[in-house]
Amino acid sequence: MIPNSPISTNRISSDIDALALITEPGRPYTRRAFTPLFLEGRKWLEQAMREAGAVTRVDAAGNLVGTIPGKRPELGTIMLGSHSDTVPDGGRFDGIAGVVVALEVARALRDQGVVLEHTLEVVDFLAEEVSIFGVSCIGSRGMSGTRPAEWLARESDGLTLEQGIAQVGGDVRLPAQRDDIKAFLELHIEQGPVLQDQQLDVGVVTAIAGITRIEIIVDGRADHAGTTPMGSRKDALTTAAWIALGVEELGKALASGAAHFAATVGEFEMSPNAANVVPARVRMLIDARAELRDDMERFVDELDKGVAAIAEKTGVTVSEPRIVSDNPPTPCDAGLLDVLDAACDSAGARHRRMASGAGHDTAWMARITRAAMIFVPCKDGRSHSADEFATTEDIALGAAVLLDAVRALDVKLQETG
Amino acid sequence: MIPNSPISTNRISSDIDALALITEPGRPYTRRAFTPLFLEGRKWLEQAMREAGAVTRVDAAGNLVGTIPGKRPELGTIMLGSHSDTVPDGGRFDGIAGVVVALEVARALRDQGVVLEHTLEVVDFLAEEVSIFGVSCIGSRGMSGTRPAEWLARESDGLTLEQGIAQVGGDVRLPAQRDDIKAFLELHIEQGPVLQDQQLDVGVVTAIAGITRIEIIVDGRADHAGTTPMGSRKDALTTAAWIALGVEELGKALASGAAHFAATVGEFEMSPNAANVVPARVRMLIDARAELRDDMERFVDELDKGVAAIAEKTGVTVSEPRIVSDNPPTPCDAGLLDVLDAACDSAGARHRRMASGAGHDTAWMARITRAAMIFVPCKDGRSHSADEFATTEDIALGAAVLLDAVRALDVKLQETG
Repeated sequence: MIPNSPISTNRISSDIDALALITEPGRPYTRRAFTPLFLEGRKWLEQAMREAGAVTRVDAAGNLVGTIPGKRPELGTIMLGSHSDTVPDGGRFDGIAGVVVALEVARALRDQGVVLEHTLEVVDFLAEEVSIFGVSCIGSRGMSGTRPAEWLARESDGLTLEQGIAQVGGDVRLPAQRDDIKAFLELHIEQGPVLQDQQLDVGVVTAIAGITRIEIIVDGRADHAGTTPMGSRKDALTTAAWIALGVEELGKALASGAAHFAATVGEFEMSPNAANVVPARVRMLIDARAELRDDMERFVDELDKGVAAIAEKTGVTVSEPRIVSDNPPTPCDAGLLDVLDAACDSAGARHRRMASGAGHDTAWMARITRAAMIFVPCKDGRSHSADEFATTEDIALGAAVLLDAVRALDVKLQETG
Repeated sequence: MIPNSPISTNRISSDIDALALITEPGRPYTRRAFTPLFLEGRKWLEQAMREAGAVTRVDAAGNLVGTIPGKRPELGTIMLGSHSDTVPDGGRFDGIAGVVVALEVARALRDQGVVLEHTLEVVDFLAEEVSIFGVSCIGSRGMSGTRPAEWLARESDGLTLEQGIAQVGGDVRLPAQRDDIKAFLELHIEQGPVLQDQQLDVGVVTAIAGITRIEIIVDGRADHAGTTPMGSRKDALTTAAWIALGVEELGKALASGAAHFAATVGEFEMSPNAANVVPARVRMLIDARAELRDDMERFVDELDKGVAAIAEKTGVTVSEPRIVSDNPPTPCDAGLLDVLDAACDSAGARHRRMASGAGHDTAWMARITRAAMIFVPCKDGRSHSADEFATTEDIALGAAVLLDAVRALDVKLQETG
């Protein structure tokens, strides 16, 4: 129970448990988009949306949407939601908590006998996680009109993405982009340790960090490990080691500012990888995340210089860092952030503003409407694993914040339009 | 032509070319032990041994041996040779040069009408390279009585090593260890750049370096690369990077002495190796080579301390370095080294003493007899590749050195027995 709130911890807990049971047997928790289990989860959600008083449909982009018409539907829509798909061996909360909380807000309004002026929609976005088609946020990109046309021909096991979307009930021939949504809010587990470490209840997300991926190839020489003198080598590994340490140092320097920054060498493959051969080649892939575009530009610039200096020092050839993908940061809507801060105070939630280092559907919805999101604490920052955990109380407090924010927006958006 | 020498560069060149043609089609130069091509190479060698005046047989350990009886066979045997098997995609000289030179010494003696007091044997050891059974030096270990009994049951494609040895003509039920050999000499390409860089003709090998392999496991934590603050990580890669650099630094320090030392991180595997996950685990395998056992002991000791200090500094768990294999150095016979130095001077070869960083059959023969070896230069230190190259002139000069050494030993060993 949340004091003075119609939010039900029991309903939230039972919904999360019910969805957790819909998983590949012996592989908790796996409910990947486009699988029969995903459709089973959707069927369960559709029923729950109806019980909350919503009219359900699958939109052209494959998103499951539950609609509760407002008193003045011409005002447009306030949308809440997240995603119900998981990664392989994922957790019970990533995405799911946001869908369940959206449902719970709808139920709490109904319990209070409140019908909003705006239409309220609860959404389960299709395939937020990297799917069998190798791409992510398929549903929110569809709804925001940003899904690349060439994606539709992507294949997995003989199925195209176009066919996959049709199987879940969408139709890529129909228009999917919305223009009636006035605000979008998402609740998500933090997937990091900050709220837990600072003993806070809610993170009001200022921006979804930009993600830039950078590839570096170190080209050494495969010499005999026994016979080649230490001073005559072109060891790709030790040169790559200097680069990995340089990435960490640069990342720490940029992270020491107020804005979120992180840099990781996530992929690192060495060849020939034979005990008695000096390493000839290393391929590294850097994942860098920045709340501020300036930080990312500084990172890329310093990385270029640092890598050149290391290559000069070690005498081993290093390719110029190559940007393989580059998504700029997405700021959340400033007006919504104020509403969320106020809702936190009103619900008694200890809160802070923070950036999201992970990508979310909110980043795509921000292309077509005011969008913002809140984080709730997750244990030890673990996610994408069966160990992922968030307490029902924390999720329910987040739901109370969203309920308050929705009621405030229903009034405020009438004024601002 | 080597001035004032019966050694024939033409014969050496034509032998090497003939064996180079016996390779897997389209995959130069591949003639792995226990394959039909290997037996084809042996058939060619057997014929060449007979043409040089030798009686041929395959011994119980699977080695091809050509015998030219001495005037006083009771004095025992002087043996010359190396191996004719190659690694996959190997070269034309590694091992082969030593077998061909042994043949050429026999031919040169015959051409001069010289019959030694001692019996002279030319040997092609079985499977010096890591074979399909995953082990190396099978023939020289057999001849020296050091082939582990449990190896015989090793299987590859349904064939046991015992059956493999039988297929080449050996018989593991019969005794293979020799006690009649008074000296063993091997010529080999250096497989390193030292002779080329110093413009020398011959390396007189003081010792076969010991090889110690050490495994280290770095146990970090798989965190989300976007959401986990830089200061809250347990990044296995950056800790492993410090260790790789530490291994290089230690290796360089020990290599700065007079004795050969080299240390290499040859294997390095990271998991989960996913772009958006902080590296959780790295397994490293260190290959360390030392001419002096003291150097290896110091290396292992300093490595233990260094790794503990790095783990303390980064806060990431690192396993204690685990020695997975440990072969001590094998010094060559001091008397033979003097004979070889004198033979170099006599043949006009610019020479130096040096250790072998690579393993060789000589190391096993040293268990049962006086043993030593010489290196000839190989281009840019390349070996185990189709680019492997040594000039016929350099190989022939090495043959002249061995010829001189054999004649000197034939006299000297009569005195020392």
